[in-house]
Amino acid sequence: MIEDKSFKSTNISELGEFGLIDHLTSQFVIKQPTTIKGVGDDAAVLDFKNQQVVLTTDLLIEGVHFDLSYMPLKHLGYKAAIVNISDVCAMNATPTQITVSIAISNRFPLEAIEELYAGIKIACEKYGVDLVGGDTTSSTKGMLISVTALGVLKAEDVVYRSGAKPNDLLVVSGDLGAAYLGLQVLEREKQVFLVNPQSQPDLTAYDYLIERHLKPEARKDIIEMLKELDVKPTAMIDISDGLSSEILHLCKQSNVGCKLYEDKIPLDQQVISTCEEFNINSTTVALSGGEDYELLFTVAQEDFDKIKGNPSMTIIGFMTEAKEGVNLITRANQQIEITAQGWNSFKE
Amino acid sequence: MIEDKSFKSTNISELGEFGLIDHLTSQFVIKQPTTIKGVGDDAAVLDFKNQQVVLTTDLLIEGVHFDLSYMPLKHLGYKAAIVNISDVCAMNATPTQITVSIAISNRFPLEAIEELYAGIKIACEKYGVDLVGGDTTSSTKGMLISVTALGVLKAEDVVYRSGAKPNDLLVVSGDLGAAYLGLQVLEREKQVFLVNPQSQPDLTAYDYLIERHLKPEARKDIIEMLKELDVKPTAMIDISDGLSSEILHLCKQSNVGCKLYEDKIPLDQQVISTCEEFNINSTTVALSGGEDYELLFTVAQEDFDKIKGNPSMTIIGFMTEAKEGVNLITRANQQIEITAQGWNSFKE
Repeated sequence: MIEDKSFKSTNISELGEFGLIDHLTSQFVIKQPTTIKGVGDDAAVLDFKNQQVVLTTDLLIEGVHFDLSYMPLKHLGYKAAIVNISDVCAMNATPTQITVSIAISNRFPLEAIEELYAGIKIACEKYGVDLVGGDTTSSTKGMLISVTALGVLKAEDVVYRSGAKPNDLLVVSGDLGAAYLGLQVLEREKQVFLVNPQSQPDLTAYDYLIERHLKPEARKDIIEMLKELDVKPTAMIDISDGLSSEILHLCKQSNVGCKLYEDKIPLDQQVISTCEEFNINSTTVALSGGEDYELLFTVAQEDFDKIKGNPSMTIIGFMTEAKEGVNLITRANQQIEITAQGWNSFKE
Repeated sequence: MIEDKSFKSTNISELGEFGLIDHLTSQFVIKQPTTIKGVGDDAAVLDFKNQQVVLTTDLLIEGVHFDLSYMPLKHLGYKAAIVNISDVCAMNATPTQITVSIAISNRFPLEAIEELYAGIKIACEKYGVDLVGGDTTSSTKGMLISVTALGVLKAEDVVYRSGAKPNDLLVVSGDLGAAYLGLQVLEREKQVFLVNPQSQPDLTAYDYLIERHLKPEARKDIIEMLKELDVKPTAMIDISDGLSSEILHLCKQSNVGCKLYEDKIPLDQQVISTCEEFNINSTTVALSGGEDYELLFTVAQEDFDKIKGNPSMTIIGFMTEAKEGVNLITRANQQIEITAQGWNSFKE
């Protein structure tokens, strides 16, 4: 993503609310056959024919979910869309539309909001979704973004969190922990910068980690791959709050237990080396880090042959009877109960 | 609405984000046949069969859109739902689902949020809509509410802003200006209270105005009435920003002009008497006040007999060729061009 280096500054109040919406959304082209009417009336009009619809929404708040001192606005727009598209994918659905509402204090010039929407547009194009609505208003402090995403699927394809059975395999896409470490690297550089504003950080050793934090992806490709492999997961969730928290959701809602094998958890080489540098445990990072936006799902044992050896997914354990509990089997072959260490924005 | 007078105070962080969502949504019952799965997974699952879907979203921010010093939280929850349901009605659709996301600073105890959701629940029950999702997070300052609403209609029933033709009649439901005046009364009482906290205001002379501000309704009844009368509006919009602003939207998007008759604008007796007391022009209040959430629509001349004399709707003018402009015909039979004085949250 190329940043715009020209520092033109236009006051938003010059455009007004309707002018601003028109200006921001005029670059978006409607491509989804399910979109009849996008932005510009009291509501969007959609036609899903005989498909079922999934609907999800998320709120991102400056100072709680993001820090604009190292999160470029274009990345923020991209990420706000991705976070919701990931939830659509976690239902085994194909993302189709989003709405984006923003509140901004008047410290932001129009050009800043254009950057934000440029990121949203890239996400829309990459994932084939239409921007069909939203709201734009002023805030008394900071920026917030509220995104709602919709997707479609056939009724028989929907995958809930509640369908896992004992002996099902527990599978995760991609690798874990990188987004959390990326955030730690950026936080460290921010502290260095505050002490010495002349410092020029070399972050090439952490490029994967930083990209995973600043520009996560939704695993729409995994949903498509599973369809091609003719594998329907029995349960699925996306990993926004850390592996341990998501496993506990799956186990609770499916009323099963789980054995998770520490040595199977997929980690990128940069995660391993950065954990050593920061002197933190890589398993803890994978279990509790969050924001990986990978898919965690369970499949029946008979689907093992279809997914074994697939470089995009890793079998990390299996489900058990609920009474056996939710456990991590360590590299030393010890069994430890998994408890949620996921992120809680209300914790002080 | 009966306010809870017991001042129990529970810290939200004790429940955590998931506990909070579970707690707040457990009282909501799914009733819509189109809702397959509500709160509790990565996304809601909906099935609209062969109906089209309308989708709208709005953001309400403390200090910009509401003032908690005179807006009870239960009313705020109700209003946040209504504002969106009104947009669904303005497409000639039947509201079916909403999602509600809130961000709250930790100055709010759990009991305050329960009040907010109690108001949302009353709106859901009254309008027959299901709460199917949302997000709950902390804010660095104040409260904000983001609501998305969905509705259904047959493809042939959708009414856009763009369908008005010259000679169509311009019609408005209910009466105008009361919500704005209710806000003025409440603002005045707040100033009195700040000077003398012992004052006990008697607001009975303004009860209609205050109710219109604090507890607006969406005109779902008008949509149903028009169906019964077999009248399909040619264009429609809801009045959130004042009559003049909405007329301009209809005219611009339909490429027509308009003659609006000042003496036809429906005003409640309390609006007239309070305008006299405040020494403001009642036409200005109706044109620029906003937040009435009435429906403004156009109908073909041949539907005149079906709606004339209907106490729920008033013919206030007619559409013209675009080149004739958008004009108010005053009581003195003068023609004045209408310009938007609607609310702009970005104006300083």
